[in-house]
Amino acid sequence: MKYFIRAVTLSIIITGLLLSWATFASESESVGAATYNEKGELVLPEGFREWVFIGAPLTPNGLNNGEAGFPEYHHVYVNPDAFAVYKRTGRFPEGTVIAKELVLLQSGDYPDGSKNAASGRGFFAGDAHGMDVMVKDTSRFSETNGWGFFNFGHHAVPYERTAVAASKSECAACHTANAGKGMVFQSYYPVLRR
Amino acid sequence: MKYFIRAVTLSIIITGLLLSWATFASESESVGAATYNEKGELVLPEGFREWVFIGAPLTPNGLNNGEAGFPEYHHVYVNPDAFAVYKRTGRFPEGTVIAKELVLLQSGDYPDGSKNAASGRGFFAGDAHGMDVMVKDTSRFSETNGWGFFNFGHHAVPYERTAVAASKSECAACHTANAGKGMVFQSYYPVLRR
Repeated sequence: MKYFIRAVTLSIIITGLLLSWATFASESESVGAATYNEKGELVLPEGFREWVFIGAPLTPNGLNNGEAGFPEYHHVYVNPDAFAVYKRTGRFPEGTVIAKELVLLQSGDYPDGSKNAASGRGFFAGDAHGMDVMVKDTSRFSETNGWGFFNFGHHAVPYERTAVAASKSECAACHTANAGKGMVFQSYYPVLRR
Repeated sequence: MKYFIRAVTLSIIITGLLLSWATFASESESVGAATYNEKGELVLPEGFREWVFIGAPLTPNGLNNGEAGFPEYHHVYVNPDAFAVYKRTGRFPEGTVIAKELVLLQSGDYPDGSKNAASGRGFFAGDAHGMDVMVKDTSRFSETNGWGFFNFGHHAVPYERTAVAASKSECAACHTANAGKGMVFQSYYPVLRR
């Protein structure tokens, strides 16, 4: 009986230690929500629509000569572990993934794309129509200020399965010029300003 | 040694069972993200900005005679456990909490509230300015089609700490008339339409 109790105690302690380690390991690893294939292309992140939402800038086609650069809602999400670090430190850690899904407006009653609804005249999201991702990795993307930029297609779902890093002129140039050193347009995202 | 191995095996099985039960219990309980105080008032949900984002309808003041009913972005979130059930079944379970945070636009360059930005002319979120919550509880809120409606203040943060259920005419009447039987304006939320 003495052996039995000792053995039970010991095995509970071991199980506890293993569980703590597993939790710690999964936390450290999951900050890196970016996965690359053998060619070094970024794999389309999964489950991003359940990450932490940071904002929904809206650039309607109707206010941009019929073709906005990013039509039209930009639903922007950060992977939760990276967001937790940002909340604590005000900085995005290595491995941060920011996903921007483009969503077209529902067809409007007015030229600007707005329509009448029970809650008033406004803008309402229609179908998903594109996917851009930025990943923080200062060594891998040293040429573009530490962030890699990826376009998984600006069209209806399904998006491309993988994407190569965009050239400096495609995305990073505008982020560098307009978003400041951090490369993220923080001023447009309420929860990042707090 | 034989006793030791048997004991270890047994305790691992017991620990496993306890963990499964704990996981199951926490899943069942956490679908109810609503907490009431001793007066039966709903307590302001915590952490709702990290729940699952479902959409950001936008009713600018500039398109609603200077005062939209819900100014201006409606950032809408569902508690994650309820969303998981919705994804599987297409129905919101008892205890579902839907939080709608109102967020004013950044001051615009145009009368409609839009401004010029690197990504084009559009709408960008300024400061948080209000909080409405709906809770599914068919027995508690049988008078308003199974959902309770709560207003934690339409003003800058901090919001009220608690709120009493709104009368039928304040919120439920419009949801009943315009959102259909389910009481949620599903058609405006891309991830609920899928």
